[in-house]
Amino acid sequence: MIDFKKLREQNIEITKRAVKSSLTRDILIIQAISCIEDTDKASSIFVNRLREWYGYYNPEFTKSIRSNEKFSELIASMSKKDLLKSLKLDEARSMGADFEKKDLDAALELARSLNDLYSFRKYLEQYLEKAMSEICPNITAIAGPLLGAKLLSLAGSIKRISELPSSTIQLLGAEKALFRHIRGLGKSPKHGVLVQHPLMESAKMKDRGKVARALADKISIAAKVDYFKGKFVGDKLKAGLEARFKKK
Amino acid sequence: MIDFKKLREQNIEITKRAVKSSLTRDILIIQAISCIEDTDKASSIFVNRLREWYGYYNPEFTKSIRSNEKFSELIASMSKKDLLKSLKLDEARSMGADFEKKDLDAALELARSLNDLYSFRKYLEQYLEKAMSEICPNITAIAGPLLGAKLLSLAGSIKRISELPSSTIQLLGAEKALFRHIRGLGKSPKHGVLVQHPLMESAKMKDRGKVARALADKISIAAKVDYFKGKFVGDKLKAGLEARFKKK
Repeated sequence: MIDFKKLREQNIEITKRAVKSSLTRDILIIQAISCIEDTDKASSIFVNRLREWYGYYNPEFTKSIRSNEKFSELIASMSKKDLLKSLKLDEARSMGADFEKKDLDAALELARSLNDLYSFRKYLEQYLEKAMSEICPNITAIAGPLLGAKLLSLAGSIKRISELPSSTIQLLGAEKALFRHIRGLGKSPKHGVLVQHPLMESAKMKDRGKVARALADKISIAAKVDYFKGKFVGDKLKAGLEARFKKK
Repeated sequence: MIDFKKLREQNIEITKRAVKSSLTRDILIIQAISCIEDTDKASSIFVNRLREWYGYYNPEFTKSIRSNEKFSELIASMSKKDLLKSLKLDEARSMGADFEKKDLDAALELARSLNDLYSFRKYLEQYLEKAMSEICPNITAIAGPLLGAKLLSLAGSIKRISELPSSTIQLLGAEKALFRHIRGLGKSPKHGVLVQHPLMESAKMKDRGKVARALADKISIAAKVDYFKGKFVGDKLKAGLEARFKKK
């Protein structure tokens, strides 16, 4: 007779092992790129707070600097006097209020936390760069590690992106605009996250659809090569694209 | 004749000085309490990411622990084996995938960033506690530093909270429900952020309106005393409240 209890236990064992081995490294890449996005969200919350808070103390400097990263770095390391001197302003004539030391410390502690977040983001970028060049060297060669990982996360896995037609890859990230268009409202989108690619940024408005199409074309080839672990062709694909679009 | 140019310059000087001296410390308290809320937002984003990411590696432990802070602390400091041992589970039978070291490091780096955020929050709480007991000792005695600061931030300043009737203080933070009620949709709210007060938490549902009213009463007295820098009466007000509500 069949021992159902034993059968069940063995089945659970098998399933557990299947679950355990189902994880592929592309899933981790997707986690990392999503984490970069989370970090961006968090640091933008913090930098708004910091600019408001520190702005009471030193409004002239807060207004003078646009880069958030530099702003947070500088105020954590330099005194108000030196910061104003770098703008050729006199501290005595500043509109900023005088903070007690403990109040200033609290604001600067926020700046330090924010700096930690920025360096965490850099760490993640480096991690992604390495992992992407190991797992999808071809996609990375064409799209770069960040954009490549973003495409991967939109597709869901390296297997799925290798199965997508290039016209879908072209529009990854533009789903909302696409379905708006399908419902008859608005123009058809010409690109999704691909817009972040350097070739797109340098292209003229009217050429962007063309560039996006060519990019998606090559990325879809690269994805297939990566998934089936073919030999490296990323440099050739990239050279072809650059020859076609770079000079213009 | 009047020298308009000079007049203008002097006027600007005066305005600058007025702006400079217009900052009071309650504004900084409001920044700090808002920053605590920002920190909560950021850490909840991160902890969701961490649970998903680390969950691939060690799903059994991730599911077993509810406290986010402990979760992040423990995984940053202990190995998977030890964590599973504490749950009396065997590592070999875990469903979690085997991570390469560099992949695991990335997830643990996130845990470390999250831990930093948690300790930053604790720092802010301590700062608030000190600042609140200096600036509004009476409000702090009754409502505690965090809730007190929250009320302050909803009112806008210590001056404004001292001018509010206690019925408004009772509903600070319930504006949405209040206006919904005024439009004729829904019941009138009985309390706003005051619901976080320990006396409210221990009160029965049907008594909450009563407790909130009494609390708001005393807080409105305390706010007036704080704004006009009267002598400390917070302990007496608090004792009155506790005598009335604590035993039930």
